[in-house]
Order: sequence, then structure tokens, then C-alpha cells
Amino acid sequence: MSRPCFHAVSGNPATQHERDDIAAQWRHDDDKPHEECGVFGVWNANDASALTALGLHALQHRGQEASGIVSYDGARFHTHKGLGLVGDVFGDSRVMATLPGHCAVGHNRYATTGATLIRNVQPLFADFEFGGLAVAHNGNLTNADTLRKALVRRGCIFQSTTDSEVFIHLIAISLYSNVVDRLIDALKQVLGAYSLIVLSRNELIGVRDPLGVRPLILGRLREEDGTEGAWVLASETCALDIVGAEFVRDVEPGEIVIINDEGIRSLKPFGSTQSRFCVFEYIYFARPDSIMDGKAVYDTRKQIGVELARESGVEADVIVPVPDSGVPSAMGFAAESGIPFELGIIRNHYVGRTFIEPTDQIRNLGVKMKHSTNRPVLDGKRVVLVDDSIVRGTTSRKIVDMVRAAGAKEVHMRISSPPTTHSCFYGIDTPERSQLLAAQHNIEEMAKLIGVDSLAFISFDGLYRALGYKDRKNACNRYCDACFTGDYPIELVDYEAEHHPEPA
Amino acid sequence: MSRPCFHAVSGNPATQHERDDIAAQWRHDDDKPHEECGVFGVWNANDASALTALGLHALQHRGQEASGIVSYDGARFHTHKGLGLVGDVFGDSRVMATLPGHCAVGHNRYATTGATLIRNVQPLFADFEFGGLAVAHNGNLTNADTLRKALVRRGCIFQSTTDSEVFIHLIAISLYSNVVDRLIDALKQVLGAYSLIVLSRNELIGVRDPLGVRPLILGRLREEDGTEGAWVLASETCALDIVGAEFVRDVEPGEIVIINDEGIRSLKPFGSTQSRFCVFEYIYFARPDSIMDGKAVYDTRKQIGVELARESGVEADVIVPVPDSGVPSAMGFAAESGIPFELGIIRNHYVGRTFIEPTDQIRNLGVKMKHSTNRPVLDGKRVVLVDDSIVRGTTSRKIVDMVRAAGAKEVHMRISSPPTTHSCFYGIDTPERSQLLAAQHNIEEMAKLIGVDSLAFISFDGLYRALGYKDRKNACNRYCDACFTGDYPIELVDYEAEHHPEPA
Amino acid sequence: MSRPCFHAVSGNPATQHERDDIAAQWRHDDDKPHEECGVFGVWNANDASALTALGLHALQHRGQEASGIVSYDGARFHTHKGLGLVGDVFGDSRVMATLPGHCAVGHNRYATTGATLIRNVQPLFADFEFGGLAVAHNGNLTNADTLRKALVRRGCIFQSTTDSEVFIHLIAISLYSNVVDRLIDALKQVLGAYSLIVLSRNELIGVRDPLGVRPLILGRLREEDGTEGAWVLASETCALDIVGAEFVRDVEPGEIVIINDEGIRSLKPFGSTQSRFCVFEYIYFARPDSIMDGKAVYDTRKQIGVELARESGVEADVIVPVPDSGVPSAMGFAAESGIPFELGIIRNHYVGRTFIEPTDQIRNLGVKMKHSTNRPVLDGKRVVLVDDSIVRGTTSRKIVDMVRAAGAKEVHMRISSPPTTHSCFYGIDTPERSQLLAAQHNIEEMAKLIGVDSLAFISFDGLYRALGYKDRKNACNRYCDACFTGDYPIELVDYEAEHHPEPA
Amino acid sequence: MSRPCFHAVSGNPATQHERDDIAAQWRHDDDKPHEECGVFGVWNANDASALTALGLHALQHRGQEASGIVSYDGARFHTHKGLGLVGDVFGDSRVMATLPGHCAVGHNRYATTGATLIRNVQPLFADFEFGGLAVAHNGNLTNADTLRKALVRRGCIFQSTTDSEVFIHLIAISLYSNVVDRLIDALKQVLGAYSLIVLSRNELIGVRDPLGVRPLILGRLREEDGTEGAWVLASETCALDIVGAEFVRDVEPGEIVIINDEGIRSLKPFGSTQSRFCVFEYIYFARPDSIMDGKAVYDTRKQIGVELARESGVEADVIVPVPDSGVPSAMGFAAESGIPFELGIIRNHYVGRTFIEPTDQIRNLGVKMKHSTNRPVLDGKRVVLVDDSIVRGTTSRKIVDMVRAAGAKEVHMRISSPPTTHSCFYGIDTPERSQLLAAQHNIEEMAKLIGVDSLAFISFDGLYRALGYKDRKNACNRYCDACFTGDYPIELVDYEAEHHPEPA
Repeated sequence: MSRPCFHAVSGNPATQHERDDIAAQWRHDDDKPHEECGVFGVWNANDASALTALGLHALQHRGQEASGIVSYDGARFHTHKGLGLVGDVFGDSRVMATLPGHCAVGHNRYATTGATLIRNVQPLFADFEFGGLAVAHNGNLTNADTLRKALVRRGCIFQSTTDSEVFIHLIAISLYSNVVDRLIDALKQVLGAYSLIVLSRNELIGVRDPLGVRPLILGRLREEDGTEGAWVLASETCALDIVGAEFVRDVEPGEIVIINDEGIRSLKPFGSTQSRFCVFEYIYFARPDSIMDGKAVYDTRKQIGVELARESGVEADVIVPVPDSGVPSAMGFAAESGIPFELGIIRNHYVGRTFIEPTDQIRNLGVKMKHSTNRPVLDGKRVVLVDDSIVRGTTSRKIVDMVRAAGAKEVHMRISSPPTTHSCFYGIDTPERSQLLAAQHNIEEMAKLIGVDSLAFISFDGLYRALGYKDRKNACNRYCDACFTGDYPIELVDYEAEHHPEPA
Repeated sequence: MSRPCFHAVSGNPATQHERDDIAAQWRHDDDKPHEECGVFGVWNANDASALTALGLHALQHRGQEASGIVSYDGARFHTHKGLGLVGDVFGDSRVMATLPGHCAVGHNRYATTGATLIRNVQPLFADFEFGGLAVAHNGNLTNADTLRKALVRRGCIFQSTTDSEVFIHLIAISLYSNVVDRLIDALKQVLGAYSLIVLSRNELIGVRDPLGVRPLILGRLREEDGTEGAWVLASETCALDIVGAEFVRDVEPGEIVIINDEGIRSLKPFGSTQSRFCVFEYIYFARPDSIMDGKAVYDTRKQIGVELARESGVEADVIVPVPDSGVPSAMGFAAESGIPFELGIIRNHYVGRTFIEPTDQIRNLGVKMKHSTNRPVLDGKRVVLVDDSIVRGTTSRKIVDMVRAAGAKEVHMRISSPPTTHSCFYGIDTPERSQLLAAQHNIEEMAKLIGVDSLAFISFDGLYRALGYKDRKNACNRYCDACFTGDYPIELVDYEAEHHPEPA
Repeated sequence: MSRPCFHAVSGNPATQHERDDIAAQWRHDDDKPHEECGVFGVWNANDASALTALGLHALQHRGQEASGIVSYDGARFHTHKGLGLVGDVFGDSRVMATLPGHCAVGHNRYATTGATLIRNVQPLFADFEFGGLAVAHNGNLTNADTLRKALVRRGCIFQSTTDSEVFIHLIAISLYSNVVDRLIDALKQVLGAYSLIVLSRNELIGVRDPLGVRPLILGRLREEDGTEGAWVLASETCALDIVGAEFVRDVEPGEIVIINDEGIRSLKPFGSTQSRFCVFEYIYFARPDSIMDGKAVYDTRKQIGVELARESGVEADVIVPVPDSGVPSAMGFAAESGIPFELGIIRNHYVGRTFIEPTDQIRNLGVKMKHSTNRPVLDGKRVVLVDDSIVRGTTSRKIVDMVRAAGAKEVHMRISSPPTTHSCFYGIDTPERSQLLAAQHNIEEMAKLIGVDSLAFISFDGLYRALGYKDRKNACNRYCDACFTGDYPIELVDYEAEHHPEPA
Repeated sequence: MSRPCFHAVSGNPATQHERDDIAAQWRHDDDKPHEECGVFGVWNANDASALTALGLHALQHRGQEASGIVSYDGARFHTHKGLGLVGDVFGDSRVMATLPGHCAVGHNRYATTGATLIRNVQPLFADFEFGGLAVAHNGNLTNADTLRKALVRRGCIFQSTTDSEVFIHLIAISLYSNVVDRLIDALKQVLGAYSLIVLSRNELIGVRDPLGVRPLILGRLREEDGTEGAWVLASETCALDIVGAEFVRDVEPGEIVIINDEGIRSLKPFGSTQSRFCVFEYIYFARPDSIMDGKAVYDTRKQIGVELARESGVEADVIVPVPDSGVPSAMGFAAESGIPFELGIIRNHYVGRTFIEPTDQIRNLGVKMKHSTNRPVLDGKRVVLVDDSIVRGTTSRKIVDMVRAAGAKEVHMRISSPPTTHSCFYGIDTPERSQLLAAQHNIEEMAKLIGVDSLAFISFDGLYRALGYKDRKNACNRYCDACFTGDYPIELVDYEAEHHPEPA
């Protein structure tokens, strides 16, 4: 769908100085779903921008294509954005010196579509009548295009191609007079998944959508030198650890947390809402050392491995994780099954920003750039490969081939999530259903296509047992698992408008 | 005055990837007024972008800080912008390959305030309900801030800090349905000097403000290979010469020229208006080989030199121009006076983008980077220096010192414009009155400050005689000469609001 | 020691365009010894340069600061070098297109001293009377400075600051007429550790120093399309795997392998020599999936963990590796001790090229950039940390602090190498003895300095048992373990000259 | 001819990081001979590097492709080099801060062959047994290849492809013990044109070849703050003016000037020699404000115009210079002939580093990028174009076409040099004879090819009259005019070896 926007032109929007899609080259190659973003904000701390850069570094796994920070020094807002890793964008102390102030908000971006443009890098910033406002957003709106068209019709000019800019324009045209009322006015018009951090001259605001699909937590820096402890908002607890902040609580679904010099207060403009937290955060996205919604991610993953071993045990000689994300589940699987856990696949972490495109003689090398087999561990063995998900299946096939080429006698694959049968519209980059292997094939067919002797996924009940419930039913829709079930808890307005337009 | 804008923050608006103020370093050093922009557009030609790049190159003297081109290929708009000279921005054939199409509009920018941001580089582009629109603007609006504040209040979000973006928003919110009507709606709300070239999907539009302060001409490429000749719009005739186009006519003050596949038509939405063309274009800005408003710039400059010699002749041994702009007037002065014309000052054209900042022992070298004296021509001589204007007087002082150090016995300065006593608000970068030497001192004082034995400026009547009139009165306000007279023909809305705000 | 060299100046040798020491910023921060280089060569294959880039990518762990490839197309040599990871330097297909030919040699560089200059990046290339010659070198010469001084005295001009350039000059001034004889002439004059790959117009040559301190292996690509299988030389077997080559054999200590269109032949100019292979390759340097000298690196590391558990078992709740290098030993330790293996420390692999320097409030964050603790695994537990070595001890201290801050009740550290008491002069970047913790303190003191409840290193006999010998004595000096013992098998000529100069 | 060299490979010698031939793109387009280099050195001054950068800026006309400075601070040498204009390479104060010291030597490069490599940028520097040595060279050796081959045979490894590196190696292998003796030893082996500035730890040395083909002058900075005045060596007097130094004298042909803390001394190792100064310096290369060999360049050029008018006067309406170099001669021609001097051709000085390559419809635009016609001055007129030389004639043809297209009734061309019939081997970039128009055609044919109504060159006697002699004979071989006469005063060893090799 085309999106009208200021300064950019559909089809070839980038000027030379803005264009940098090298980063996108390897994006889909590892055939994983991708988190779209990480957010971090701090109110009233020395070195606010440095803390934010550290927080973004700890959240790097949530987005590696671009980073941005907006700081506020009591008089002015300061912005720096760039393409690349946090360390590349903010590693220069001269850059950090351009971001003074006691408050800051930052964003890591993983772009889902098109080239990565510097204009699209968040936080977005606009100067309003009432002063500046920076917005960092993790998630995806399901009625962004519909709203965008209406706003353009009204005379609004968009300058990015991101969903998130819709927030800015809705705030700009709101007739309410203060920032929080304008923000609520805007929130009431959008649908979708949004964890927001907003920085104005007078407050730092955290927002989670009514269903709390994407995470957002509140933390506090210990007081130093007699100063009051600063408040921190972040996507995950691992970002608190790196800056030495203490976890206070999760921001609640549908909650607006407003932090200012008077302290902290909370609004619930949507009333009491039902949590539908993204279950895939536990399976793959979140960092293993994070604690989400009260549960340790690492423990949960190991426990999924345990359940998987119970459900789909198999006689074998070694349990081998597909690194890095399959490691905890494989450890759980090994512990439960009593079969030794071995590093049969080695991951090369030194992949630069770009790499050689396969030519002539050299084919299908993509996967070899990241993984290599540890032959002595695999040769002549019955191998259980443990991975977290199968999306297109292309990488799984290559890894199985590598493992067989290294001499494995049997290859069994165990997946620590149910089959991925549906696309995500709430902030995760997944391909269309037509490209999802599990949407097109049953498990037997998938096993054949991937080339394994047996294939099993964790069951729904097994997954929810690992999360501490008796079974899925017992979890009472506490999570969004639409990518496995097609049970979408938020209306897909744009999708419906495009695929099932109403008759004229 | 602060200007609210999207994504930028007053005080430190630039991200690292956007910031490049190196180009600005030498900006004021030559102590000349500066033209703000050059514009060029072409409709229905092969290689439209290449022609536009050539046209911009010929107009390089009107702006050296940045360049941009938007092309249209019948389906999509394509944009490329960059900081630097036209050859630096468009010299790469791979860049040109990203600008396909038979129509294009281009812009050279000379920034008057703040850092040079890629966001500010024109043409500005926006995608509207009715399709894309690119706008290139030479001039300055006198009510831009007033309009901007009103637009921000209405919810419009600005993304550049240029006056020109006001046009875009006024067009965006207009209730008229077609591009031309929306454009006229916008024009009726702005005040100031504006030569515009606008490119939409269906037409190329040229506009001159009601008084025609800034130039805009119409040209036509000869037909080739049976194709119809393409139309060209440009700031000066020298841009026609480089692409081999023929001069058709000046766009008239207050005229809108609309070029589309049906041909060309003209609108006069402001009715018949009085021309007040900028007289400084003749004195300094325009390229000597351009013909403006029917008069050859080179001839006019020489004739000013003739008039100056008649008015302020002096016994001397050599007539020496301050290169490059003083050359034609000095030739006229020499011819009329019979005193030999000699190149006593040599200009070094190889000044890179940056240069050494004077330190310790090395002071006041700025002027030496650009000029050096040709000692044998000056030593022991009575020298008449001919220059086009005195703004702050700092460079004049340094040049006089250099000429004396080279042995000149006497130094007389003759200036081919009247004393610059007022700021320009119509698109020329001049300092505030407090910094204009002639606004603070009489001629005798100026002579002393600059260090010359005598100083004379062309008289008003002399200037207009050189332009073909009997005297200034006889020219009947045909020109804007506000920088010499303070007679501002267009209301200074923003300036008045800032300096003489109405009582609350 | 100062090294005379062409074009560079000691102290500030780099021109702006050559200087890039950003890469060096994090070099010592992880407080590990560093391998200096990886080498790869291929003779007679399609896409020789692409294969070499892949091989270098697989050898990236041996050097991350710079990479270079020289190819030969039958008529001309072609060179490309750059700073950064292999993927950064060779990821652009346009770059690869500049490296045509069926033969190529490549090099990964880890610089031990000074800034990383593009001039120092290998392979070094020189045009001789007899044609071009490219040399890639892994190792370090112990008489390089002595030879360099003599060569400079003779009139040779050095252009890099690398030891390796000595080879080039010795070959250049040799009076022998063919490449192999000149090479042998040069080899007879140098002392030290050198695995060389040399590419001339007529042959690809692999050389290992008489003691075979650094690794070099021979592999062969399977024949395709009726062509004969190409020969490959590489530092490790993992580089064969990525290109699909089969392992043939280790190049022997003191052997020269000459590959040309007639086939392969072997010379032993030093006669039969004693192998003293670097034992640290097993402990830390080599990739776990490589097989060195007939032994699988991964198995050896696990076995060291087993021996360590036997020697220095301790009551504890969890075995936690310091990732990534401590993982296999920790697995062995856990398996032998029966204590659960847990990922209590998470490594952040997304460290960009640079990062924020700690300021004010933010101190000692370096280690946190790379590692974070997985609190639920550590809290309230008795923890055994397994790491491969302690060099300065600074990182160990920080990690222990982190683990305690995460709630560990006891922290025991087990190290899979003996105490590092001596510097390496054979190609490994280690600090001077004065900075080696184990050279200055006994184990009790070290435990206190690092802050652990107990500290143990693998014993010499335990280490050699893991390698398959009864004890160290039984290994019969088969390895170089000078960094643990000070038993240097190759004379340290330069070091002696500098530290114990002969009386005049 | 192929030149063996270190690190570079014939055919594709440049690595990506070294390659930058964009600068070369416009090189031959203006169809002028090019000076190869400018040199500047200073001994014992504060801000020695800043003075050198200024001096190089004043000498920018002698080489625009690259610049370098080596400074010495009493302990160490410091180097910075870069491609581009002096202001681009040295305009950053942080760069200047890396070049401390009271002594410095600098070089502007105009490359004659191949790509411009940073390795080729001078000053060349080498660290010898006796310390560092920097060498800056203007000129060309006629036996460089012969010497180079002999040096390579001896084992010397070249790292640049410049002639100048031969000096370095000859100095390196000399058996003499001090710098000056080694330098003289080297000089006695080379043939050709060489103005050298050499900087060692103890002295700054200026050398002119025995015939003094290329210029070199000695100047002195006025004493400041009680310090002794610093010595300056430079290619032209205009470089003294910019730093405020006073002209002392020309370095004499065959003279070695040695400046150290004791003062200045002079050696004449070649005995008394005959001066053969390059006459083209007067005609075209030198800056008009320089004084060479006691004669003002500007005056000489004007006088050539006077002589030309006397010899080849023609009835015409305007005298039009081809800017910029033809201006003084045109002034002289106009003054003598009484025909008005007019700027009928305008030069665009804003040509960026690159520009659009002509495509399709757009042909032969090269010349239009730099020049445009001032139509009112030319239309209907009989025009005399005055230029300094005709090399290939391609540009002349285009300019004549432009002038005719602007309406000129007659076009007469007058050239202020004799016909260029031979190549220069002494440091000027001229094409081979086969491409020199005057080497292939008589004047009548040339006139036809260029498209003029008449064509005349200054006669030999006229040229020498302008230089103050009665005629050429009377000038007694005081100048090298080989490019006009083929009378080569220095043996062309390499050229002869290549074109007339001796029978085996």
C-alpha cells in the first residue's frame, strides 16, 4: 500500500545521503521473526543520554538497523540518530556531548519494510505550539493507513513512512490544550500494539496499549549524592541491569504512567483491560536474562525444553541446539531426556554488515556464514536439533543438510514453539501466510521438506504448562498467540480494508 | 525568531548525518551580499535531470551550499539532494541514473541562517491527495513566520526551517481541488519575493511574485529528432545557454505560467502589477553573460563604471578591479578615464571547502587566501580600486592594506553601487543595519575606516543612467533599490511583528 | 623499540586517510591473549577470491582488525585490503570483481602494537625482477628488529611496521635466481614462529617454521565439472569446511609445500625437526569446531574441564561458563562433577565498533557492555565460574563482582589453563610480565584480588592428560607452553638485544 | 612502461581505500599542459606547518590533485597527506594539530599518469640509519626507469610509482655517512629536471638541477618577537607573499642550499652550470603575480601580447581573452592594437570535483561547463581570441564554435606561445607528439581544423623580445624551449631506451 509522505517519493524515496540499505541485506536470511523495536527513557538523571545509550545497547536484540536519542536539557531538545548498532551511532564521545540534559528517550529500530531511511529512525520529534515532543514507539498500528489517509486528506504532510508518525499528527491536530490530554485523544483513535515513551518539556510518559501486547517496564536508579532516584522506562529488565536501576513494576496494559518533577502518577483512560501479552517474547524475542511479566525468560525457555522432551522424546545420542536462541530449550530437553547436550553447531558472531553474495560455484553459503558444524560431535550420531521456531523453513533445511553432511546418522528436530501459521500484525516482522511453512504444510510434509527423520513442535498445552498454567484453556487468553492460532485480539482495520474492501 | 518544525530542535537541530556546516565557514568572509537561490525546471525533454543539473551548474553563482533535483517519469517522482556544488552532488552518473523522466525541477541553495541541513535543501516535495508536488523557490517571504505560527496552531508539522515550506502547507490545506487553484490560494496568502518553479504530475508551473523582485525566464529547447521542443524555466539566461535553449521571454511580475502536454498558458491572478525588479541583480548577483529584463548585465556594469568615472574621476596611474565582480565596472572606468586597466589583484580560485583558521603568528589571512597583490603593477603607483559594494567594510580594509603593502602611493576606491544602508528582506543575505558600514558612517568616515585616500559611490542618478534612464526619478520605481534607499515595496510583516509588536 | 620505515614516522606515522584506530579501542578490554593472524590460500579454483574471503571469514576469530586478499589471474596480481571484519572489507560484489583469477592468498590481521595502518595489512606484495610475490604471515619473528636494522643499514627501505616485511626484503636481496631458493635463503635467516602462504606467478607455497608453532593445514576442493580439485592452505580446518574442501593433512613443522600446475611437492630445508605446537591454540585460540594436529579442539576443551573437575572439584549449585570461550570446559566440568551447567552470564554480541567511554556516574561499564548476569540462575547459589585463562585479571574481577551483585552466595573460579606467567614472543599478543597477574602473585593472592572464594588452575599434568598424554613429561616437549613455563624453544634475539645488550 | 613497485600491482594497483581517481576526471579536459608540482619548505618558524599549508595554497595552480606536509618537531617527524585541494586536505585545525614543529616541507601534486594513489603523494618520507628524511620534488627524471630497474635488481623495493622515489633509494644505498654527501651521491646519478626540498633532523635543503629547469626560490620571514627570521624555500614568489616572507634570491641552477641552526650555506657540486629555465613558466604555468628569474610574469605576458599584436595584427572589433590564462596577453594585444578588450568568454569557477558525463542528447558539453559566451560582446563582431597555447586543439575548436554560435562575424586566434610541437620530459604533462596539433599540421591546416578565419602564434624572436632579448639567438640558450623546438638540453635516457633500444 502506498503511503503519502513529505519529502519522500514512493518507489525511490531516498536521497543519496539518506539511503543505506546495506543493513537490510542479511535481514531475512536467518529466517526468524524479528522484533521491531526497543525503547528506553530516563527522567532526571545525570548523563541521561549516556544511560539511554547503554539501555539501548542492552536492548540491541530488539532492533539492529538504527538508533536514536532525543535529550532535553531544560531549555532545548537535542537529537541524534543514525543507522547501525548503538555502539556505532553513539560510540563517539563528541556525539554524546551534543545530547546534554537530565531527560532522554531512545529507540532501537528494526525496519519491517523498504529501505532504512534516517527520516524513519525514531524517536520522532515535532515542535508544537506547546513545545517539543519526542515519541518512541514499539509495536504496530492496525489502522495506521486508514488514519494516515484521513490525515493527508485534512492537509497533514507526512515526512516518514512509519506508522508511528500517525501519533504525532493526531497530537498536533488535537484540540485539547495539554500534552497528556492530546496524547489520550490520539490514543483513542489508534488501534494496535503500542508501547510508547514520550518526552515533553514537563514530563516523561510511558504508555502500553489496552492489551499490553508489547512489554514496557518501570525502574528506578538508586539515589546518588543526595539526588532523588531517577525514573527509567524500558522494554525489558535487562536494560535496567546495565544502568544499575532497580525493577519497580511492569507498566500495566492500558496504563499511562506520567513522570514529572512532582513524582509519578498513573492514568487508565481505557478503564480496566484484559492483558494479551505476546507469548513469542518468551519463546524468542526477549533476552534470556530478562524477567517479563514476573517470569524469568531463561527459566521459561528451559522449561519449554523439558515439556518438549516429555511430549516428543526420541532415542538419540546428542541434543544439539541451533545457536543462539535454541540453547536454553535444548538444555531443558537434554536434562529431561538424559541425553548429552553438545555444541554441535558453532555460530560465527563476526558477520560484518555485508557479505559476499553467492556466485557460480558457491551456492547456499548464507547459512554457512553464520553457522558451522562441529563434526566430531555429530559424526555417526543420532542428533536431536532444538530450535525455537520454523518460519519459512529455508534455514532449517540448510542446517539439517549441514548436520547430515557432518555425518549425523539420524536428525530429529524439536521446536520450542507451536507451528507458526499466521502473520503478526502487532509489531513482529513475519512473512505473509503464503510463505509460512506451517501455514502450507502439515507436520509430516514439513519434516520431509526440511529433511529430518522426525519433527515435533511443542503443543499448546505444553507451552502454557511451561508458563505455569495447567493448559492453554487455563491460561484464559492471558497471552496473544495469534501467530500460532490466528486468534487476533485487535481488529485488523488496514488489512481488512485492503483485502476485503467494502462494496462502493 | 524560533521556528517550530518537525524533527528539528532549535539550537541543535541537526543529527550527525544531517549536519554539515563546513560549507558555511567561508560564507561571510568575502563580505558580499549573497543571492539565496537559483531555480531551473524543464518539461518534456530527454535527459531532463541532466539538463537540470547543467542549468543549476550555470546558476551556481546564485547558491553554492546545496543542490537538489526532483524528476518525474510519468509514474513516479525521484529526488536527490546534497550539500556542496552541483558537480559534487550530481557529478556521479549513478546518481543521475536514479533521476529518470522527461520532467525535472532543480534548486541551488545559499542558506541565510543556521546550519545547512539536508532537510532544508530544495526542491521541497510532498505527496498530497492529488499526487506529488515539488517546489523550488528563490526569494524570501515577509510574512512566513506569521503564517507558520498560524499553521502550527492548526496542527501542521514543519520539517524544514525554510520559508518555502509555508507554500507546501498552504497548498496541503487548501480546499480547492486542483493544483493550480490550490497554488493560487496559497500565493494569495503569502507576501514577499518569490520566483517559484512547481512540478506536479500534470504540469510545470512558473510563478513570479506580483512585483517580480526576483528573476524568472522562459526558454525553449530546439526540437530534435522530430520531438517538440521542451520548455525551460530558469533564474537567468545563462542557464539557457548551457543547455542550448533559446530565450523566449521573462515571466512577468505576478504571472503564473503553466506548461503541460497541451502547451503553455498564462494566468495573472493578481491582475496587472508594477514591476520592482531587484537592481542589485545588475550590480552584483547575476552572471555577467546573462540578459535580465532586456538588458545585458555585462554592458550595464561597464556603463556604471563609465558613469562612475564621470562622476568621481581622480588622477591616478592604474585602475585595478577587485576581482572578479569589480572587473567590468573597472573596465568601464578605465575606458572613460583613459587610465590603464591592470590586474593588480590576483584571485586564487582554488579555495577548498575549508581552510586553516588563523592562529598565533598568522592573522588576518582570510583575505589572502582569496586575493594576492601583483606587486609590479602597484608599486609606486596611484591606484584606483573599483569594487561593486561595501557591506561591512572588513574585506575592503584588508584589500586596501594589501595594496598599500605592495607599494601603492595612493589608493582611491570607487564603488559601482550606492551606499548599502538597509537590509534586504526579499531574498538577499545582508547583515543587519547595525553591521552595514554605510548605515553607521558617512562617506568621509568610511574612507578613513577603510584607509583610502578617497572614496566614492555611484550616485542614484548615475546608476539609473547606466540602466538607460535619465535619472532615478525617470525610472519611475521600475526597480527595488531598498538596500540603498529603505524604500521597501512589500510589507515587512514578520519584521514589524518582531520589532514593533502590537500592544496586547 | 623504534622501527625505521618508509613513509611512516614513529610516533605519529599515520596520515588521516590511513589512520583508523577505532577498531583498537576495545582490543584489550576483554583481557584475553589474542591470536595475531589467520591465513588462507587457494590454487587453481574458480572464484578463488570468493573462496578466500569465505575462508578468512571462518578464520575471523584469529584477527578482526583488518583483512586483505591478493589474487592472480595468470597475467596480473590484484590487491584489496581494508580495516574491519572480512564481511565489511569484502562484502561488496564490486570489490570482489576487482579480484579476478584462479589463485589467491588472504590474511586476517590482529595488530599487536600501534595504530592499525592500511600499509600494515597483509598480504604484503612486492614486484621483483622475477615477478610479483604476495606473502601472508601468521606468527612473530624473534630476530626481526635485528634483521631490519641490518637491512636498513644496507639501504633497504621499509614501508610497513610489520615483522613480516623482513621476509620480503630478504627475498628481494637474495642472490638465488628462483622464488623457492630465494624463499629458503630468507627462511634460513629468520628466527621465530611463521606459518606463511606465498603466492607467485607460478606457485602457491605453504611454509611452517621448523618447530611448527603456529598451525597450517592442507586441504583439497572436490573436483567439479571435470576440473582437477583445487588445493587449499589454511590456518585451521574450519576454513576448509566453509568452502567445502576436504582436509588432507597438516603441513609439517619445517616443511615447505609447493603447489603448482604440475601438482604438489614438499621440501624440508631444515631437515627433520621437533614439533613444538602452541598449546594455547587448544585452550583458547582455535575455533572449537577445528581439528588441530589430529585432535578435536572442542573435545580437548571439554576434557580439560573434566580434568579440572577431578583436580579441583568444589561443592556448588551451578557451573557457569564465562562466555563464549569458557563454555566447553564448563560443560566438561559440569558433566564430571554432576553439578548443573547453567548460562548464568549472557554475552551481548552486538558490540559495535566503538562505544561510550565511561563518564562521571558511569564507571566500569566496559565489561557490562559485553556481559550481563542472568540473575535467577545466580541468586542465592554457590557458583563455579569456568574461564579459559587469567591475563591481567581486570575482567575476571569485574565478572566476579557482577556475579556477586546478582546474589551469588559463593563464587569459585576454575581456569582451564595453567597460570599465565610469561609473555609470548611467537605471535600471540600478551602483555609484559609486569602486567600478568600470575607473574606477580601466587594463587592465594590472585583469589583475593579477583574476589573469589576459591581459585584453581588446571595443572600441567592435567592439561597434558586432556591432550592424551600420561603427564607433561610424557608429552616430550611436543608443545610450546612457554607462556605458562617460560621454556622458550626459539631464541629471543631481539628481546635479548634490547634487555641485555652486549657491552660495547 | 611497467614499473615494479612494492604493494601495488600493475594494472590494478589500488586498493579501494587508496583509490581515488575522481580528481583525474577533468584533468585533460581543458587541453592545457600541466605543471606537475609545487614545493614549499620552512626552517625554524612557529606554526611551520600552517605556513607550509598557506604556501601550498598559493602554489595550488601547480598541482591540484593531492597535497602533503611533513613536519619535524625536534624529536619526531609527522606526516599528513591527502587527495584534493590544500584547503580540503589541511583545512581542519585538528589535522594541523597533528603536524607540530618548527620545520616543515610540503608538496602539491599534479599526477601525470595512472590513478592518484595516496602512496604517490609527496613529500616522500623514509627512516634511514641516520634518521628520517622527507623529500619533495618538482620535475621529472629522464633516467628514472633505468635507475629503478637497476635498483630493483639490487633488491630495492619500491612502494610508489613516482620518479621521485628513486632519490630515496639512491640516498638509502649510498655509502657516504652524512645526509648531504648521500644526497650529492644520489644527485650525480640522476638526470632530469628536479627542484627538491629535503628535510632532515638537522637541516632543510634546497636543490635545483644543473640547468635549473624548474624554479626554486629562497625567502625569509621577518623576525618577530626577537626570534631570528625563518628561512623559506618555495617554487614561486607568490608563496612568499602569502606568508609575509621577503624574497631573498633564486636558488641557482646546480646549487644546493643547506639551511640549519648555524645559518645558510651553498654547495655547487656540479660546478658552474648553464641555466636553461623553462620558458613555459612565463607563458602559462607561473602565477601572474610571481616574479621568476627577476622578471614579473604578468608584465612578460602582457608584453608577449604586445609583440603578438605587432607581428600578427588584424582588423577586428574586439580582443577577447580565453580566460583565465589568456587575459594578460589579450590586454597587451588590445593596448598595442587599439582594439577594445572585452570579456567575451566567461569562466565558471564553480566546477566541482566531478561532473556529468555527456549522454545522448547532451554532447560536447565539457567546455561549456567551464566557459560560456557573453553574447552581446560577440554578436556581429570581428573577434580576436587570445590564448596562451594550442595543445591538442580540441578545446580551441569548441571555444571557436561557441564564439561563432554567439554571433561573431569573424574569429581570429592569436597564441602567445610558438606552436607546441614536442613533448616535455622535464616535469610538464604534455601528450605525445602524435596528439600535438602543431606536430601534425601546419598553421594553415590548424586554422582550418580549429575553424578560425586566421591563426597566428608568437614568433620565437617575438617571444624572446618580450623577455628582454633582441631575439632568440641573443638569448643564448638561457631557456629551455624544447616543447617548441625539440632542442632537449638533458639526455632522454629512458625514452631512448624504450624507443631505440640497443641491439642485443
